[in-house]
Amino acid sequence: MPVSIQVTTRSRNQMKDITGDVQKAIAEAGASDGLCTIYVPHTTAGVTINEGADPAVCQDILDKLEDLVPPNAGYRHMEGNADSHVKASLMGSSASVMVENGRLVLGTWQKIFFCEFDGPRTRKVYVSVSG
Amino acid sequence: MPVSIQVTTRSRNQMKDITGDVQKAIAEAGASDGLCTIYVPHTTAGVTINEGADPAVCQDILDKLEDLVPPNAGYRHMEGNADSHVKASLMGSSASVMVENGRLVLGTWQKIFFCEFDGPRTRKVYVSVSG
Amino acid sequence: MPVSIQVTTRSRNQMKDITGDVQKAIAEAGASDGLCTIYVPHTTAGVTINEGADPAVCQDILDKLEDLVPPNAGYRHMEGNADSHVKASLMGSSASVMVENGRLVLGTWQKIFFCEFDGPRTRKVYVSVSG
Repeated sequence: MPVSIQVTTRSRNQMKDITGDVQKAIAEAGASDGLCTIYVPHTTAGVTINEGADPAVCQDILDKLEDLVPPNAGYRHMEGNADSHVKASLMGSSASVMVENGRLVLGTWQKIFFCEFDGPRTRKVYVSVSG
Repeated sequence: MPVSIQVTTRSRNQMKDITGDVQKAIAEAGASDGLCTIYVPHTTAGVTINEGADPAVCQDILDKLEDLVPPNAGYRHMEGNADSHVKASLMGSSASVMVENGRLVLGTWQKIFFCEFDGPRTRKVYVSVSG
Repeated sequence: MPVSIQVTTRSRNQMKDITGDVQKAIAEAGASDGLCTIYVPHTTAGVTINEGADPAVCQDILDKLEDLVPPNAGYRHMEGNADSHVKASLMGSSASVMVENGRLVLGTWQKIFFCEFDGPRTRKVYVSVSG
Protein backbone atom coordinates (compact mmCIF):
# COMPACT_ATOMS: atom_id res chain seq x y z
CA MET A 1 0.00 0.00 0.00
CA PRO A 2 1.53 3.32 -1.04
CA VAL A 3 2.47 5.86 1.62
CA SER A 4 1.48 9.43 0.78
CA ILE A 5 3.87 12.36 1.22
CA GLN A 6 2.78 16.00 1.22
CA VAL A 7 4.99 18.45 -0.67
CA THR A 8 4.58 22.22 -0.46
CA THR A 9 6.19 24.28 -3.22
CA ARG A 10 6.80 28.01 -3.21
CA SER A 11 7.32 29.04 -6.82
CA ARG A 12 5.99 28.24 -10.30
CA ASN A 13 9.03 26.10 -11.17
CA GLN A 14 10.87 24.38 -8.34
CA MET A 15 12.85 21.23 -7.71
CA LYS A 16 12.37 20.21 -4.10
CA ASP A 17 14.54 17.59 -2.46
CA ILE A 18 12.20 14.90 -1.06
CA THR A 19 14.85 12.25 -0.37
CA GLY A 20 14.36 12.45 3.41
CA ASP A 21 10.59 12.13 3.08
CA VAL A 22 10.92 9.13 0.77
CA GLN A 23 13.38 7.48 3.18
CA LYS A 24 10.94 8.11 6.05
CA ALA A 25 8.06 6.62 4.03
CA ILE A 26 10.11 3.47 3.46
CA ALA A 27 10.72 3.15 7.21
CA GLU A 28 7.02 3.75 7.82
CA ALA A 29 6.12 1.01 5.35
CA GLY A 30 8.56 -1.29 7.16
CA ALA A 31 10.21 -2.17 3.85
CA SER A 32 13.65 -3.75 3.94
CA ASP A 33 14.62 -4.82 0.42
CA GLY A 34 13.03 -4.21 -2.96
CA LEU A 35 12.25 -1.54 -5.48
CA CYS A 36 11.03 1.84 -4.27
CA THR A 37 8.73 3.73 -6.63
CA ILE A 38 8.12 7.43 -6.20
CA TYR A 39 4.94 8.44 -8.01
CA VAL A 40 3.56 11.92 -8.71
CA PRO A 41 -0.25 11.88 -9.23
CA HIS A 42 -0.28 15.32 -10.86
CA THR A 43 -0.09 16.37 -14.52
CA THR A 44 1.92 19.59 -14.10
CA ALA A 45 4.64 18.14 -11.87
CA GLY A 46 7.16 15.33 -12.15
CA VAL A 47 10.04 13.66 -10.38
CA THR A 48 13.71 13.28 -11.21
CA ILE A 49 16.94 12.16 -9.58
CA ASN A 50 19.96 14.43 -9.91
CA GLU A 51 22.69 16.24 -7.99
CA GLY A 52 21.77 17.69 -4.61
CA ALA A 53 25.14 19.16 -3.52
CA ASP A 54 25.11 22.32 -5.66
CA PRO A 55 21.64 23.93 -5.92
CA ALA A 56 22.80 25.52 -9.19
CA VAL A 57 22.32 22.15 -10.91
CA CYS A 58 18.57 22.16 -10.21
CA GLN A 59 18.35 25.79 -11.28
CA ASP A 60 20.10 24.92 -14.55
CA ILE A 61 17.64 22.07 -15.18
CA LEU A 62 14.66 24.36 -14.51
CA ASP A 63 16.13 27.16 -16.64
CA LYS A 64 16.83 24.82 -19.55
CA LEU A 65 13.29 23.40 -19.41
CA GLU A 66 11.91 26.97 -19.36
CA ASP A 67 14.12 27.78 -22.35
CA LEU A 68 12.99 24.70 -24.33
CA VAL A 69 9.34 24.92 -23.27
CA PRO A 70 8.56 28.59 -22.56
CA PRO A 71 5.19 29.47 -21.01
CA ASN A 72 2.51 31.15 -23.14
CA ALA A 73 4.13 30.32 -26.47
CA GLY A 74 1.07 29.72 -28.62
CA TYR A 75 -0.20 26.52 -27.01
CA ARG A 76 -3.72 25.17 -27.58
CA HIS A 77 -4.46 24.35 -23.93
CA MET A 78 -6.03 27.56 -22.59
CA GLU A 79 -5.28 27.30 -18.86
CA GLY A 80 -1.90 29.03 -19.08
CA ASN A 81 -0.01 25.93 -17.97
CA ALA A 82 0.52 24.01 -21.20
CA ASP A 83 4.29 24.33 -20.68
CA SER A 84 3.89 22.75 -17.23
CA HIS A 85 2.27 19.68 -18.76
CA VAL A 86 5.04 19.30 -21.35
CA LYS A 87 7.77 19.69 -18.72
CA ALA A 88 6.03 17.07 -16.55
CA SER A 89 6.20 14.51 -19.37
CA LEU A 90 9.86 15.33 -20.07
CA MET A 91 10.79 14.61 -16.44
CA GLY A 92 8.29 11.77 -15.98
CA SER A 93 5.73 10.96 -13.31
CA SER A 94 7.72 8.30 -11.50
CA ALA A 95 11.21 7.37 -10.37
CA SER A 96 12.58 4.02 -9.21
CA VAL A 97 15.30 3.43 -6.65
CA MET A 98 16.46 0.17 -5.12
CA VAL A 99 16.19 -0.37 -1.36
CA GLU A 100 18.66 -2.44 0.61
CA ASN A 101 18.39 -3.04 4.36
CA GLY A 102 15.74 -0.36 4.53
CA ARG A 103 17.92 2.29 2.85
CA LEU A 104 17.60 3.90 -0.57
CA VAL A 105 20.52 2.82 -2.77
CA LEU A 106 21.41 6.23 -4.21
CA GLY A 107 24.70 7.39 -5.71
CA THR A 108 26.94 9.71 -3.69
CA TRP A 109 25.56 12.90 -5.22
CA GLN A 110 22.03 11.77 -5.95
CA LYS A 111 18.91 13.22 -4.39
CA ILE A 112 15.27 12.66 -5.35
CA PHE A 113 13.57 15.86 -6.52
CA PHE A 114 9.91 16.66 -6.79
CA CYS A 115 9.62 18.85 -9.91
CA GLU A 116 6.98 21.56 -9.57
CA PHE A 117 6.03 23.23 -12.85
CA ASP A 118 2.79 25.00 -11.87
CA GLY A 119 3.26 26.14 -8.28
CA PRO A 120 3.20 27.29 -5.68
CA ARG A 121 0.93 24.47 -4.53
CA THR A 122 0.47 21.73 -1.99
CA ARG A 123 1.11 18.44 -3.75
CA LYS A 124 1.08 14.72 -3.03
CA VAL A 125 3.64 12.03 -3.81
CA TYR A 126 3.09 8.30 -3.39
CA VAL A 127 5.88 5.99 -2.26
CA SER A 128 5.74 2.20 -2.37
CA VAL A 129 8.23 -0.64 -2.16
CA SER A 130 7.70 -3.88 -4.06
CA GLY A 131 9.62 -6.99 -3.04
CA MET B 1 3.66 -12.90 -16.95
CA PRO B 2 3.02 -9.74 -18.96
CA VAL B 3 -0.35 -9.25 -20.65
CA SER B 4 -0.11 -7.89 -24.20
CA ILE B 5 -2.32 -5.03 -25.41
CA GLN B 6 -2.78 -4.11 -29.08
CA VAL B 7 -2.79 -0.42 -29.95
CA THR B 8 -3.77 0.92 -33.37
CA THR B 9 -2.66 4.45 -34.19
CA ARG B 10 -3.92 6.62 -37.03
CA SER B 11 -1.30 9.32 -37.57
CA ARG B 12 2.47 9.80 -37.54
CA ASN B 13 2.43 11.45 -34.09
CA GLN B 14 -0.36 10.52 -31.71
CA MET B 15 -0.95 10.17 -28.01
CA LYS B 16 -3.57 7.49 -27.47
CA ASP B 17 -5.27 7.00 -24.10
CA ILE B 18 -4.74 3.34 -23.11
CA THR B 19 -5.81 3.68 -19.46
CA GLY B 20 -8.87 1.47 -19.95
CA ASP B 21 -6.84 -1.23 -21.69
CA VAL B 22 -4.23 -1.20 -18.92
CA GLN B 23 -6.95 -1.43 -16.26
CA LYS B 24 -8.47 -4.37 -18.15
CA ALA B 25 -5.09 -6.09 -18.37
CA ILE B 26 -4.69 -5.79 -14.60
CA ALA B 27 -8.08 -7.41 -14.08
CA GLU B 28 -7.12 -10.12 -16.57
CA ALA B 29 -3.89 -10.80 -14.66
CA GLY B 30 -5.93 -11.00 -11.46
CA ALA B 31 -3.59 -8.53 -9.77
CA SER B 32 -4.80 -6.82 -6.63
CA ASP B 33 -1.94 -4.78 -5.14
CA GLY B 34 1.51 -3.92 -6.42
CA LEU B 35 3.31 -1.96 -9.07
CA CYS B 36 1.96 -1.90 -12.61
CA THR B 37 4.50 -1.46 -15.38
CA ILE B 38 3.43 -0.42 -18.85
CA TYR B 39 6.15 -1.30 -21.36
CA VAL B 40 6.46 -0.34 -25.03
CA PRO B 41 8.59 -2.84 -27.02
CA HIS B 42 9.11 -0.41 -29.92
CA THR B 43 11.87 2.09 -30.64
CA THR B 44 9.79 4.81 -32.31
CA ALA B 45 7.05 4.95 -29.68
CA GLY B 46 6.91 5.60 -25.95
CA VAL B 47 4.54 6.00 -23.05
CA THR B 48 3.71 8.91 -20.75
CA ILE B 49 1.17 9.89 -18.12
CA ASN B 50 -0.47 13.29 -18.43
CA GLU B 51 -3.80 15.10 -18.55
CA GLY B 52 -6.66 13.39 -20.32
CA ALA B 53 -9.48 15.92 -19.81
CA ASP B 54 -8.46 18.46 -22.46
CA PRO B 55 -7.12 16.83 -25.66
CA ALA B 56 -5.24 20.10 -26.33
CA VAL B 57 -2.68 19.05 -23.71
CA CYS B 58 -1.61 16.00 -25.72
CA GLN B 59 -1.55 18.07 -28.90
CA ASP B 60 0.71 20.62 -27.17
CA ILE B 61 3.08 17.85 -26.05
CA LEU B 62 3.24 16.42 -29.57
CA ASP B 63 3.68 19.87 -31.14
CA LYS B 64 6.48 20.78 -28.73
CA LEU B 65 8.29 17.51 -29.42
CA GLU B 66 7.94 18.15 -33.16
CA ASP B 67 9.30 21.65 -32.62
CA LEU B 68 12.30 20.43 -30.59
CA VAL B 69 12.95 17.35 -32.73
CA PRO B 70 11.74 18.12 -36.25
CA PRO B 71 11.68 15.30 -38.82
CA ASN B 72 14.25 15.26 -41.64
CA ALA B 73 16.61 17.75 -40.04
CA GLY B 74 19.97 16.38 -41.07
CA TYR B 75 19.99 13.14 -39.08
CA ARG B 76 22.38 10.27 -39.79
CA HIS B 77 19.80 7.49 -39.55
CA MET B 78 18.52 7.13 -43.11
CA GLU B 79 15.06 5.64 -42.57
CA GLY B 80 13.29 8.99 -42.25
CA ASN B 81 12.30 8.36 -38.64
CA ALA B 82 15.35 9.52 -36.67
CA ASP B 83 13.15 12.12 -34.95
CA SER B 84 10.77 9.33 -33.90
CA HIS B 85 13.61 7.51 -32.11
CA VAL B 86 14.70 10.68 -30.28
CA LYS B 87 11.13 11.46 -29.20
CA ALA B 88 10.72 7.88 -27.95
CA SER B 89 13.74 8.26 -25.64
CA LEU B 90 12.50 11.65 -24.38
CA MET B 91 9.16 10.12 -23.35
CA GLY B 92 10.60 6.76 -22.25
CA SER B 93 9.69 3.17 -22.98
CA SER B 94 7.93 2.43 -19.70
CA ALA B 95 5.65 3.94 -17.09
CA SER B 96 4.93 2.78 -13.55
CA VAL B 97 1.67 3.15 -11.65
CA MET B 98 0.68 1.70 -8.30
CA VAL B 99 -2.27 -0.69 -8.05
CA GLU B 100 -4.53 -0.87 -5.00
CA ASN B 101 -7.46 -3.29 -4.71
CA GLY B 102 -7.10 -4.04 -8.40
CA ARG B 103 -7.34 -0.38 -9.46
CA LEU B 104 -4.68 1.91 -10.94
CA VAL B 105 -3.82 4.64 -8.43
CA LEU B 106 -3.87 7.61 -10.82
CA GLY B 107 -4.33 11.29 -10.02
CA THR B 108 -7.68 12.93 -10.83
CA TRP B 109 -6.59 14.21 -14.25
CA GLN B 110 -4.08 11.51 -15.16
CA LYS B 111 -4.42 9.12 -18.06
CA ILE B 112 -1.83 6.73 -19.51
CA PHE B 113 -0.92 7.58 -23.10
CA PHE B 114 0.76 5.44 -25.72
CA CYS B 115 2.98 7.86 -27.67
CA GLU B 116 3.15 7.05 -31.37
CA PHE B 117 5.94 8.81 -33.25
CA ASP B 118 6.08 6.80 -36.48
CA GLY B 119 2.51 5.81 -37.24
CA PRO B 120 0.01 4.96 -38.30
CA ARG B 121 0.76 1.41 -37.13
CA THR B 122 -0.50 -1.49 -35.11
CA ARG B 123 1.59 -1.65 -31.94
CA LYS B 124 1.95 -3.76 -28.83
CA VAL B 125 2.19 -2.74 -25.17
CA TYR B 126 3.05 -5.09 -22.30
CA VAL B 127 1.44 -4.73 -18.89
CA SER B 128 2.58 -6.53 -15.75
CA VAL B 129 2.04 -6.15 -12.02
CA SER B 130 4.73 -7.05 -9.51
CA GLY B 131 3.78 -7.57 -5.88
CA MET C 1 19.91 -7.47 -3.82
CA PRO C 2 21.11 -5.46 -6.80
CA VAL C 3 23.94 -6.78 -8.96
CA SER C 4 26.51 -4.15 -9.93
CA ILE C 5 27.80 -3.80 -13.51
CA GLN C 6 30.89 -1.83 -14.46
CA VAL C 7 30.68 0.35 -17.58
CA THR C 8 33.69 2.01 -19.16
CA THR C 9 33.00 4.87 -21.54
CA ARG C 10 35.42 6.43 -24.01
CA SER C 11 34.02 9.85 -24.90
CA ARG C 12 32.19 12.77 -23.30
CA ASN C 13 28.85 11.73 -24.79
CA GLN C 14 28.27 8.05 -25.51
CA MET C 15 25.47 5.56 -25.63
CA LYS C 16 26.86 2.15 -24.74
CA ASP C 17 24.86 -1.04 -25.28
CA ILE C 18 24.71 -2.87 -21.92
CA THR C 19 21.98 -5.37 -22.84
CA GLY C 20 24.34 -8.33 -22.59
CA ASP C 21 25.62 -7.23 -19.17
CA VAL C 22 22.09 -6.76 -17.88
CA GLN C 23 21.09 -10.19 -19.19
CA LYS C 24 24.13 -11.69 -17.45
CA ALA C 25 23.27 -9.92 -14.18
CA ILE C 26 19.79 -11.43 -14.31
CA ALA C 27 21.27 -14.89 -14.73
CA GLU C 28 23.68 -14.18 -11.87
CA ALA C 29 20.79 -13.11 -9.64
CA GLY C 30 19.01 -16.34 -10.60
CA ALA C 31 15.88 -14.39 -11.49
CA SER C 32 13.27 -16.11 -13.63
CA ASP C 33 10.20 -13.86 -13.85
CA GLY C 34 9.52 -10.31 -12.75
CA LEU C 35 10.48 -6.74 -13.41
CA CYS C 36 14.10 -5.87 -14.12
CA THR C 37 15.23 -2.40 -13.08
CA ILE C 38 18.41 -0.89 -14.47
CA TYR C 39 19.58 1.95 -12.23
CA VAL C 40 22.34 4.51 -12.83
CA PRO C 41 23.74 5.92 -9.54
CA HIS C 42 25.37 8.90 -11.27
CA THR C 43 24.09 12.43 -11.91
CA THR C 44 25.75 13.04 -15.29
CA ALA C 45 24.68 9.77 -16.92
CA GLY C 46 21.38 8.06 -17.60
CA VAL C 47 19.84 5.03 -19.26
CA THR C 48 17.48 4.59 -22.19
CA ILE C 49 16.11 1.86 -24.42
CA ASN C 50 16.21 2.41 -28.15
CA GLU C 51 17.33 0.92 -31.46
CA GLY C 52 20.56 -1.05 -31.50
CA ALA C 53 20.72 -2.16 -35.14
CA ASP C 54 21.88 1.11 -36.72
CA PRO C 55 24.44 2.98 -34.58
CA ALA C 56 23.33 6.19 -36.32
CA VAL C 57 20.22 6.21 -34.14
CA CYS C 58 22.28 6.60 -30.95
CA GLN C 59 24.41 9.25 -32.61
CA ASP C 60 21.27 11.15 -33.60
CA ILE C 61 19.98 11.01 -30.01
CA LEU C 62 23.31 12.29 -28.65
CA ASP C 63 23.54 15.00 -31.32
CA LYS C 64 20.00 16.21 -30.66
CA LEU C 65 20.65 16.34 -26.90
CA GLU C 66 23.84 18.32 -27.56
CA ASP C 67 21.87 20.64 -29.82
CA LEU C 68 19.10 21.20 -27.23
CA VAL C 69 21.44 21.34 -24.23
CA PRO C 70 24.81 22.64 -25.47
CA PRO C 71 27.77 22.62 -23.06
CA ASN C 72 29.04 25.92 -21.60
CA ALA C 73 25.94 27.93 -22.49
CA GLY C 74 25.74 30.28 -19.52
CA TYR C 75 24.84 27.75 -16.81
CA ARG C 76 25.12 28.52 -13.09
CA HIS C 77 26.81 25.23 -12.10
CA MET C 78 30.51 25.99 -12.44
CA GLU C 79 31.99 22.53 -13.01
CA GLY C 80 31.61 22.61 -16.78
CA ASN C 81 29.13 19.76 -16.83
CA ALA C 82 25.79 21.48 -16.24
CA ASP C 83 24.62 20.21 -19.63
CA SER C 84 25.50 16.65 -18.56
CA HIS C 85 23.18 16.94 -15.55
CA VAL C 86 20.31 18.26 -17.69
CA LYS C 87 20.77 15.49 -20.27
CA ALA C 88 20.81 12.89 -17.47
CA SER C 89 17.39 14.05 -16.25
CA LEU C 90 15.99 14.07 -19.80
CA MET C 91 16.98 10.41 -20.28
CA GLY C 92 16.28 9.35 -16.68
CA SER C 93 18.25 7.39 -14.12
CA SER C 94 16.41 4.10 -14.48
CA ALA C 95 14.79 1.81 -17.02
CA SER C 96 12.38 -1.07 -16.48
CA VAL C 97 12.10 -4.22 -18.56
CA MET C 98 10.04 -7.33 -17.91
CA VAL C 99 11.76 -10.69 -17.46
CA GLU C 100 10.20 -13.97 -18.55
CA ASN C 101 11.89 -17.35 -18.07
CA GLY C 102 15.09 -15.56 -17.17
CA ARG C 103 15.14 -13.49 -20.39
CA LEU C 104 14.64 -9.75 -20.88
CA VAL C 105 11.39 -9.15 -22.79
CA LEU C 106 12.69 -6.59 -25.30
CA GLY C 107 11.26 -5.64 -28.66
CA THR C 108 13.01 -6.87 -31.83
CA TRP C 109 15.12 -3.73 -32.26
CA GLN C 110 15.48 -2.71 -28.62
CA LYS C 111 18.76 -2.56 -26.74
CA ILE C 112 19.46 -1.06 -23.32
CA PHE C 113 21.90 1.86 -23.49
CA PHE C 114 23.97 3.42 -20.73
CA CYS C 115 24.02 7.14 -21.58
CA GLU C 116 27.32 8.81 -20.73
CA PHE C 117 27.23 12.60 -20.71
CA ASP C 118 30.45 13.44 -18.87
CA GLY C 119 32.97 10.80 -19.90
CA PRO C 120 35.22 9.15 -20.48
CA ARG C 121 34.79 7.44 -17.11
CA THR C 122 34.36 4.15 -15.35
CA ARG C 123 30.77 3.96 -14.18
CA LYS C 124 28.49 1.64 -12.25
CA VAL C 125 25.00 0.38 -13.04
CA TYR C 126 22.76 -1.57 -10.66
CA VAL C 127 20.46 -4.31 -11.87
CA SER C 128 17.73 -5.93 -9.81
CA VAL C 129 14.68 -8.08 -10.48
CA SER C 130 11.57 -7.84 -8.34
CA GLY C 131 9.01 -10.62 -8.44
